[in-house]
Amino acid sequence: MIYTPKEEIINRTDKLRTLMGRASLDGAFFHYKIDYFYLSGTMQDAFLYVPLNGEPKLFVRREMRRARRESPLSDLIPLRSLETVKAHIGNPRRVGFQLDVMPYNFVMRFQKLLGDVELVDVSPLIIDLRKIKSPFEVGLMDKAAAIAGKVYEKIPEVLREGMTEIELGGILEAYAKTLGHEGLLRTRSLIFEAYTWHILSGKTGSIVSQMNSPLGGLGMSPAFPVGASRKKIRRGEPIMIDFGICYHGYQVDETRMFAIGHMPERFADAYEACREIHYRVLDKALEGVSCSELFQYSVELADRMGYGDYYLGYTPHKVNFLAHGIGIEISEPPFIAAKMDYPLLEGMTLAIEPKMVFPRQGACGIENTVLIEKDRYRVLTRMDEKIIVVD
Amino acid sequence: MIYTPKEEIINRTDKLRTLMGRASLDGAFFHYKIDYFYLSGTMQDAFLYVPLNGEPKLFVRREMRRARRESPLSDLIPLRSLETVKAHIGNPRRVGFQLDVMPYNFVMRFQKLLGDVELVDVSPLIIDLRKIKSPFEVGLMDKAAAIAGKVYEKIPEVLREGMTEIELGGILEAYAKTLGHEGLLRTRSLIFEAYTWHILSGKTGSIVSQMNSPLGGLGMSPAFPVGASRKKIRRGEPIMIDFGICYHGYQVDETRMFAIGHMPERFADAYEACREIHYRVLDKALEGVSCSELFQYSVELADRMGYGDYYLGYTPHKVNFLAHGIGIEISEPPFIAAKMDYPLLEGMTLAIEPKMVFPRQGACGIENTVLIEKDRYRVLTRMDEKIIVVD
Repeated sequence: MIYTPKEEIINRTDKLRTLMGRASLDGAFFHYKIDYFYLSGTMQDAFLYVPLNGEPKLFVRREMRRARRESPLSDLIPLRSLETVKAHIGNPRRVGFQLDVMPYNFVMRFQKLLGDVELVDVSPLIIDLRKIKSPFEVGLMDKAAAIAGKVYEKIPEVLREGMTEIELGGILEAYAKTLGHEGLLRTRSLIFEAYTWHILSGKTGSIVSQMNSPLGGLGMSPAFPVGASRKKIRRGEPIMIDFGICYHGYQVDETRMFAIGHMPERFADAYEACREIHYRVLDKALEGVSCSELFQYSVELADRMGYGDYYLGYTPHKVNFLAHGIGIEISEPPFIAAKMDYPLLEGMTLAIEPKMVFPRQGACGIENTVLIEKDRYRVLTRMDEKIIVVD
Repeated sequence: MIYTPKEEIINRTDKLRTLMGRASLDGAFFHYKIDYFYLSGTMQDAFLYVPLNGEPKLFVRREMRRARRESPLSDLIPLRSLETVKAHIGNPRRVGFQLDVMPYNFVMRFQKLLGDVELVDVSPLIIDLRKIKSPFEVGLMDKAAAIAGKVYEKIPEVLREGMTEIELGGILEAYAKTLGHEGLLRTRSLIFEAYTWHILSGKTGSIVSQMNSPLGGLGMSPAFPVGASRKKIRRGEPIMIDFGICYHGYQVDETRMFAIGHMPERFADAYEACREIHYRVLDKALEGVSCSELFQYSVELADRMGYGDYYLGYTPHKVNFLAHGIGIEISEPPFIAAKMDYPLLEGMTLAIEPKMVFPRQGACGIENTVLIEKDRYRVLTRMDEKIIVVD
């Protein structure tokens, strides 16, 4: 087991406090587990209170011993009821709460408990903070990327004509788990689920679903309408394998193209166009231009190469993003997307995924998880980028 | 693909309207996908409005063609923004909204849009409705149970000394997917995740985690602290395999005990006690007593058999439930638990799971998904209940 080091938690908390001070917050609560894991090192059922000054307090419902082992915080308090929280926080007047994810009923109950304390959405602060990854976090993402690499190397051994997409997905996920993959990808929503097993072959690559993605796949049923399906994989189809890996909570996202027998020329050509867009956009990102400009630049590149109708989906299903930040959530800022008027900065990690979708035929594209460094970028997902064709 | 039949949707909607009428609602919105799937047949990104009178309206963000194929509703409207919703609902004064799961910010935004419409929590109504399963729903759970049966039958073929818990979990999940298992178990919470791969061997069976469960397992890391771990499975350990299956959105939950070489006597005995509690409680349920009485009865049975210290966990980690309802969510009413003062009724499905946990040694127990019928019950998960010992 790897535990989050104490200095890491102190650094994150200090930075959060700077943001809290600017927002005139006397303290902030975190009960959505992704964020309190970031600030405490544990995901045991808990409630974290970070005062503007003084030690953070972690109220733990269960299991206290595991929470102590996992968290370097020193002030852990058994949580019997929300009253416990109230009794320990003094008299803040304006406090942060995760109003973007906490259910309405829960917030109202909490508001009633706290009386005339003003609750303010603190999620924008913590999400902003999480955009810049520390070397410790990058190390975990590097490990996730190494697992992803091994999973992709396994594909030529197991891919065969006639197997279903979901069968291949299951085999890859089972293998990934033996290497340390944790099985779930996490999103800040009850409505959008991220599945690991996005394997789309031939025309399922052109099927759209509820996700905000240029392609969704057929999925398994109306109740699972995204990702791999029971469709059999055939010779001469483009096979897109978009497989996220999670290690110690940190995720990487990666896409490579495969085929059995041969890759149709149209898809091979479009794949090269995707690679070109991928690298030209990253080069441009180092010039410090804004993400919305990068997005526009990518659209222009696709247009010039003759892929305007297919780039990031076809009308009316085109999407407005080329890359999503990634870390302890599969999709988080920064986004290379329309209207995102900020540059990419050192320490940001993002999954960049130029994809082309051809109606009724299929999709192709590439995706890498990339770290922005000083004056350069580093591709964490280092799997070879050639199209893999097996017999 | 199986689509929800029109009569099914009509029946559910009619019953909902009866409850809405009693609650003086002019209409109700559903945006949490589990519930609008139940009422519409689709999980495409959508917003459902059920007026007290008149046709339900399904506002679909994307993808309209799939929504039309999946849903028997006739009034499907492209959803461009929330304004679209407002323009189509007339002038209700008091409407339901899913205030238990919809985030605070979203509710406030919606409230602002609707002006002086009163928003009332509608979730208790839909959850109440979902407690009674139709024959169509039971049919899907039967299919899920059949998949579970095949997965359990596979275990003796693949279980071997020295493999890790997560390795076994991955193999079983990969196999389950080839049979139609959809990979995720769904909970009405962003905080508690349900994993399929709960495989606990020896002492990991005595490890508690953030879930409200007598046992949690070690999990993979502080970020995935529940379920199977990298611990190797050894000879002579109790191996608890608690494996949920999801088919067309419908879930079953099941637990069986395995060992390599031999099962320690203490666990074999405790397993028989669990079986006895399981069946005696179900027999008693047919007498129409309340769930809280059933729970108390089970505690008394365990005490009398000498398992008071271990039944449903050890102090301070004992839990207060013996069974959870199950359907399109892994845990939903009814609950055989303290304070649940309602009887079990025909058409209810629940996963009953008496388990004993021995500190630092491990756990054992049984779990079946059961349907309550008229004057009898039917165990859907029909896998043999003998302890399986492999060489």
